[in-house]
Amino acid sequence: MADSTLTGIPVATGIAIGKAFFVNRNHMANLPRQIVAAEDMPAEIERLRAAFKSVETELAAIREQVPEELKSHGSLIDTHLMMLKDPKLAGASEKYIETLGLNAAWALEKAVSDQEATFEAIKDQYIRERMQDVRVVAEKVQTKLMGVKTDLSSISGRAIIMAHDLTPADTVELQVDKIMAFATVRGGKTSHTGIMARSLGIPALVGVGRLEEVHDGDLVIIDGLTGKIVINPTESELAEYNERAALFEDYTRKIRRHCHLPAETFDGSRVMVQANIELVEEVTAVLDNGGEGVGLYRTEYAYLNRTTLPTEEELAEKYIDLAAIMSPRKVVFRTLDLGSDKFIASYGELNETNPAMGLRAIRFCLKNPQLFKTQLRAILRASAYGNVSLMFPMISGVKEVRQAKAWLAQAKAELRREGVDYDPDMPIGTMIELPAAVMIAEFLAHEVDFFSIGTNDLIQYSIGVDRTNRHVSYLYQPLHPATLRAIKLVVDAAHQAGIEVSLCGEVASDPFCVPILLGMGIDSISMTPQAIPGIKRIIRQTNMHDCRLLLKDVLECRTVSRINNLVMDNIFKHFPEEVTFFSSLLENDELPS
Amino acid sequence: MADSTLTGIPVATGIAIGKAFFVNRNHMANLPRQIVAAEDMPAEIERLRAAFKSVETELAAIREQVPEELKSHGSLIDTHLMMLKDPKLAGASEKYIETLGLNAAWALEKAVSDQEATFEAIKDQYIRERMQDVRVVAEKVQTKLMGVKTDLSSISGRAIIMAHDLTPADTVELQVDKIMAFATVRGGKTSHTGIMARSLGIPALVGVGRLEEVHDGDLVIIDGLTGKIVINPTESELAEYNERAALFEDYTRKIRRHCHLPAETFDGSRVMVQANIELVEEVTAVLDNGGEGVGLYRTEYAYLNRTTLPTEEELAEKYIDLAAIMSPRKVVFRTLDLGSDKFIASYGELNETNPAMGLRAIRFCLKNPQLFKTQLRAILRASAYGNVSLMFPMISGVKEVRQAKAWLAQAKAELRREGVDYDPDMPIGTMIELPAAVMIAEFLAHEVDFFSIGTNDLIQYSIGVDRTNRHVSYLYQPLHPATLRAIKLVVDAAHQAGIEVSLCGEVASDPFCVPILLGMGIDSISMTPQAIPGIKRIIRQTNMHDCRLLLKDVLECRTVSRINNLVMDNIFKHFPEEVTFFSSLLENDELPS
Repeated sequence: MADSTLTGIPVATGIAIGKAFFVNRNHMANLPRQIVAAEDMPAEIERLRAAFKSVETELAAIREQVPEELKSHGSLIDTHLMMLKDPKLAGASEKYIETLGLNAAWALEKAVSDQEATFEAIKDQYIRERMQDVRVVAEKVQTKLMGVKTDLSSISGRAIIMAHDLTPADTVELQVDKIMAFATVRGGKTSHTGIMARSLGIPALVGVGRLEEVHDGDLVIIDGLTGKIVINPTESELAEYNERAALFEDYTRKIRRHCHLPAETFDGSRVMVQANIELVEEVTAVLDNGGEGVGLYRTEYAYLNRTTLPTEEELAEKYIDLAAIMSPRKVVFRTLDLGSDKFIASYGELNETNPAMGLRAIRFCLKNPQLFKTQLRAILRASAYGNVSLMFPMISGVKEVRQAKAWLAQAKAELRREGVDYDPDMPIGTMIELPAAVMIAEFLAHEVDFFSIGTNDLIQYSIGVDRTNRHVSYLYQPLHPATLRAIKLVVDAAHQAGIEVSLCGEVASDPFCVPILLGMGIDSISMTPQAIPGIKRIIRQTNMHDCRLLLKDVLECRTVSRINNLVMDNIFKHFPEEVTFFSSLLENDELPS
Repeated sequence: MADSTLTGIPVATGIAIGKAFFVNRNHMANLPRQIVAAEDMPAEIERLRAAFKSVETELAAIREQVPEELKSHGSLIDTHLMMLKDPKLAGASEKYIETLGLNAAWALEKAVSDQEATFEAIKDQYIRERMQDVRVVAEKVQTKLMGVKTDLSSISGRAIIMAHDLTPADTVELQVDKIMAFATVRGGKTSHTGIMARSLGIPALVGVGRLEEVHDGDLVIIDGLTGKIVINPTESELAEYNERAALFEDYTRKIRRHCHLPAETFDGSRVMVQANIELVEEVTAVLDNGGEGVGLYRTEYAYLNRTTLPTEEELAEKYIDLAAIMSPRKVVFRTLDLGSDKFIASYGELNETNPAMGLRAIRFCLKNPQLFKTQLRAILRASAYGNVSLMFPMISGVKEVRQAKAWLAQAKAELRREGVDYDPDMPIGTMIELPAAVMIAEFLAHEVDFFSIGTNDLIQYSIGVDRTNRHVSYLYQPLHPATLRAIKLVVDAAHQAGIEVSLCGEVASDPFCVPILLGMGIDSISMTPQAIPGIKRIIRQTNMHDCRLLLKDVLECRTVSRINNLVMDNIFKHFPEEVTFFSSLLENDELPS
């Protein structure tokens, strides 16, 4: 038997077998505090000095590699180097070792606290905030002393990254070619870890309980199909998983072969299969996987991890690239969908109790019209270079759409005056992701050219469940009868009004859900590029007539488990080849009874 | 002109004119840090000693008053007294004044930090946690030094309480007879402050911006009708508000006169008008105001501010009291609706990012069946003494209802075996407060005997807005077309299945909304007891036929503002007497255009 088996939520498929590398982000909470015997003090001081020296060397090396265009980062490192060389911090720490016998990391902690008190007495806020940097430097030294790696760049070979959480900021530091898989404690189906993993084509699990049982260097299997982590597997387990990995690769190869054929059912119904992306660089993956357009371009990335807002020029350059490369295929830009919890820049943190129900997305944009208009202008400029659409996130009522459209009209008028080209007929849509938008879909349909249903948020708000909260994530069920009724209501309202409706949540890439979506008459679905070949294959093996029958039965089911049963019967009946492959996935699907 | 006028969200009506008393809960963030000149050091040390002494005297006096049955609280105070008398803390602080010239509060802060470091090195968690108490004591001394009052018991006359926030824990300390009104920065329409104020019959505003502009002792007007705070009003403003206060009292007296008549429309339709309460003591207010039953008994209070769970005996005693006093009138018990953010006891804090979408209510109960069953048994026992119903909060699907009912069946079986009486036909209902429950109302209707629509949460989840977050609370609109459609859908589903449907959100006590609810055919509405007379009066002046016509028009409106206009036209047309009174309320209703 393996040492242990853990379970998580699979957010990117595939199987990886390799060494674990644990990125311990919470280690400062475990700062060791011991009293050192008098005879050990000189050695402890030596340890402290060595740690300072070692961090200094590392920083100097990093300083060397900072390219000219990132000068500001360079000067930050200079500041940190100066702090390290400042005898006050080191001196005060050594004194705490000598006089109180504190261990090195603790002594440094005390020295930093003392400095903090001095800093706090300073009136000038800017200077006070520099204290942050002293903390950063001290933590680097403490990390050295504690022997904890925080820096992903220290991986030598390829490894499976384990972490409490991975923020977009962390992933910027990643050397992607070294990573075989991810497993994190936090994060949900749509977390950054998942997006990252799917775009790298490697497996990932989030919401893993007891991840602390994994040790650095343990041989682990990450099964992105079932959500299992096997720690130090036996020979027979290794053999089994190698076989499954081979099966997975076979299937992947097979579906890739036909991925450029249109997504047309046996009986001749066409559905657009598009991609969700967040980086322009993902365009290759979209085209390679047979994506017929970008159904959702998440525009948040350009706003993250920086202290100033992106300029119109900066945004327009990226947007034009994307529109031009994809042309004549469609690109749907979603305007900024950041919540106050993620948006650093100059807007500060609002510290909201329930950020998911706070100042986010269109709300945030309508309160910051300058920022909003800068983005609208950049999108409009891109519309001159390709087939561009625009949609607003988190719309709850007709008034919000009208307000957003008023800003768009103003941006258009400005560009016109300035003689800048844009597509005057650029289609405008709205996300349907709040239950309120579902209820008034028939009204919203009169305001826009298309709908895009965001099932991830829709499920979250409908069921009142934070999908990143592992205590309740069991309630996050895409095949909930309420969700299916909501989608049906929206599709019918859109078609009644003669507009198109797309769907861009996880559900779109779920082979079990797709036949139901087809039955509803959805016009296009949009998903992570890597899922496109498999979904196209499902559609090409489907009969629209069967989908409608399935939908009819499903809508009469009162519980998730009944729907799951029907859906599985359907898969077994119509997709025998997929069953072989997906059976491994099914075993993990705990069906509520 | 008055010094300034602030605006908040009115959560309890009425007008109060009095002195402001600011309870500054955030003052520790403003700990003064100054360097004291050498010649001032002795005086600073004296200040510190005086502060220690003064806190000691206060604590000793409080110690005296602790009744025998609260011994544990007494011993906590003893511990704190010991800490105050411990020369180490005072001595170390004095040393910081003498050697570094820190001001007294800062010096004490440093002394506490030093102790913390020592504490943290201790392995035994229990001892480590005692550090908390050192903090508490030190903060009391620091508060003295800073001249900030945190203790509501220090009010001499009657006053208007201003606070950043008031928790249920704070309100336990209140001497209610001293309070004329509340105004807080945090909190929403259903916050504890509002519940408290309404049950005291005093006005309250929450979500007040710039509250820090009010100073202790300022004469302020709190207008719980318009949401305004007038700071240091002029003579003419005082006269105006005195007149309005008189008008309000006149109206209140008038409606009270007929409050015991049935809530029947001109054309003979009856609606039950019931009360929402959270304390058994509120029963008097229910009956005095003509409440025809308790439509929502919130059972959370017994679980707050304590370290152990209430026993079945403890709960049953309260529940039986309530059922017996109200008999033969109905009492609807809602099972525990606590979120992990509020539930202290032995379950610990989960530290959820979005507690509103976390482990709450029925989810929490189903994960803690022992706690759940204890409550179910207590409610069942009460059912033998009156007209008791039971309902489950935050139901998202059929499966949850079935699981909850399974525990209820088990509780019944146990009681039967033990020979304990209960009502075997006690009606079972479910709250409809999640959008998912709305979508599947027709399925849920087959599982229960009645529905109770909780509009507060329903609006919150539908629009994805935390009503306690003042950055987005403008989106929390009861007359949102989506909300009205949702309510309609639920009422229709209930009646289709032949079960009754009640409504217990704020909407029920809003005179503008009630005609719409009547038009939908709602069977009963439940509200804060103080609102019952006004709402009964509205109903008794209403024609059901007009309500149906109004509803028809309202359901065709695409925006909140159009609905608001229709509703106001209706009020002007049918309730001329109310218009005089409510016109002051209307001026504050910012209508989105």
